[in-house]
Amino acid sequence: MKILITGGNGFIGRRLLSTLLERGKMVDADNQEREIERIVISDIGPGLSPLPDDPRIEERIGPGQGDIGDLKVAANLAESRPDLVFHLAAVVSGEAERDFDLGMRINFHGSLQLLEAFRESGQTPRLVFAGSVAAYGGEMPKTIPDSAILTPQTSYGSQKAAIELMLHDYSRRGFLDGRSLRLPTVVVRPGKANAAASSFASAIIREPLEGRPYTCPVSRETRVWLLSPRQAVKNLLHAASLPAGAFGMNRSLNLPGMTASVDEMIDDLRAVAGSRITDRLNFHIDPFIERIVSGWATEFSPERALKLGFSPDPDFRSVIEAFIADDLGGQPPTSIGANR
Amino acid sequence: MKILITGGNGFIGRRLLSTLLERGKMVDADNQEREIERIVISDIGPGLSPLPDDPRIEERIGPGQGDIGDLKVAANLAESRPDLVFHLAAVVSGEAERDFDLGMRINFHGSLQLLEAFRESGQTPRLVFAGSVAAYGGEMPKTIPDSAILTPQTSYGSQKAAIELMLHDYSRRGFLDGRSLRLPTVVVRPGKANAAASSFASAIIREPLEGRPYTCPVSRETRVWLLSPRQAVKNLLHAASLPAGAFGMNRSLNLPGMTASVDEMIDDLRAVAGSRITDRLNFHIDPFIERIVSGWATEFSPERALKLGFSPDPDFRSVIEAFIADDLGGQPPTSIGANR
Repeated sequence: MKILITGGNGFIGRRLLSTLLERGKMVDADNQEREIERIVISDIGPGLSPLPDDPRIEERIGPGQGDIGDLKVAANLAESRPDLVFHLAAVVSGEAERDFDLGMRINFHGSLQLLEAFRESGQTPRLVFAGSVAAYGGEMPKTIPDSAILTPQTSYGSQKAAIELMLHDYSRRGFLDGRSLRLPTVVVRPGKANAAASSFASAIIREPLEGRPYTCPVSRETRVWLLSPRQAVKNLLHAASLPAGAFGMNRSLNLPGMTASVDEMIDDLRAVAGSRITDRLNFHIDPFIERIVSGWATEFSPERALKLGFSPDPDFRSVIEAFIADDLGGQPPTSIGANR
Repeated sequence: MKILITGGNGFIGRRLLSTLLERGKMVDADNQEREIERIVISDIGPGLSPLPDDPRIEERIGPGQGDIGDLKVAANLAESRPDLVFHLAAVVSGEAERDFDLGMRINFHGSLQLLEAFRESGQTPRLVFAGSVAAYGGEMPKTIPDSAILTPQTSYGSQKAAIELMLHDYSRRGFLDGRSLRLPTVVVRPGKANAAASSFASAIIREPLEGRPYTCPVSRETRVWLLSPRQAVKNLLHAASLPAGAFGMNRSLNLPGMTASVDEMIDDLRAVAGSRITDRLNFHIDPFIERIVSGWATEFSPERALKLGFSPDPDFRSVIEAFIADDLGGQPPTSIGANR
């Protein structure tokens, strides 16, 4: 079995890669477990750390090799004939809002080119698309049911929502076997703060734990619908292992998650790591970020996904503890804090 | 004031054109009534009848002039610098289902090219987009509220729904001032039966009234959400005259309409024109058409549109009578029937 991960050098891509390499097997289109022979990692640039040394990995990194906005790249990726694709490559929300052309080029046209390249290849891989809850916005009920209309209020959300529709139609017509998960904000994201408008939700945990001060650009009352990286990867793999029929007449779904306010997250961080850590946080509202974030949905009732076996994190404390275990090498947080 | 109508040789486009020429005025972006100086009619081909002889009309007809799937055509249309655009050009549902590439070329990429051409032109026209209730499908409540998710089950519906999202984002960013109306099935469509899967809903009225037998490809129980051409044009003009602010955080809406079964429509036709007319109808189910049509929504609760002043037909009998008045020259239907 051959797997392609676009945006494979992103933090979700990398974690997915490690998990796949460790598992060594995935179910194929006939729902048979098969040995993973090759994983193609495509990305516009390098990751935070070098790729693991594993003969199953094939790199397609850099503008000419991994830029899905480039028609030839999309065709080449399809020609690698994967049985399973995780399409994670995207320009993040804040960046897509600042640079409309870039967001359209990657999130919209890039994704479409990839779908089209697979259609032309005549192969029909299973394709898991990283959608986003940013597809919701505007006037919404407090708790979003699976049946709610998508009225995104960002270019990122609009691009993700439009691709969902195309992915469904390409699947309905049998050009590929797509499934799209609207991911909650994934917290705690390792590395540096990025241009995602949701970057703060990870930074308020990561930055103080890594010994750095952090100025939160949104208010303490801001609520976020979130999911840990561990759980995100688990759900992406679950999506890849379900038969097409399980999705019925709608290839997209809202993933389970949990809602926490900035204040609640900081309280849990204090409980886990102490107030010396949380004292590194302060607040200064950034209107650009706050405008984007305040338009997002914060509570969902993801019944369809729960019924299909997707699952959330048990609580936010476990999200912090998972970050410490997975990304800070499991050091006790107080010592981490003390060391830097 | 300059107006552009894409798909201007279609029956809705032509009726819109006559109404605009007769009115002579439209409100501009500042909501001031202004004289209509020019109406650009673009279309891939000619209409059922010649264009009216009016110096305000400018023709852009044929592949090189009026094909919005052609990048240059889209740019040229934008360069005509209209203050108001009615974007009606589309490949109909049955055709878009049979020929995926054609539907994508016109309904999706063509529409997108038009939006992009206006963005590049630096002008920000008001643009009324003919969306469709075919954007609904799959698992739906019996009566569709404005808040319902769009899960189209045809390529036509998917293309229309994806463009809606883009139109909203282009509007939100100020590239143009878009508004999208999800049109019910427009009945009675003059001319010949076409490749629209909904073609039967007009044909069961038009064909016998024009003296021809007709074989209906769907069952008598089939229900349709419909709107007359008169009312469709009235609502398109209403959409063009509302200030942008009226649409709030969602530039798309479900138009009001009415639900009628094939049987009910035939009963009304019999009441208006007699059973000598309705005896010209018979039934033979076409599975391709029935599959598409059975996936459509048949009842809506279009509260937003009603609040904004959009309106339906009073009843189906008046729809038949309007067709006789507007398209059959107002002849008493029994004599029409008798003559042919």
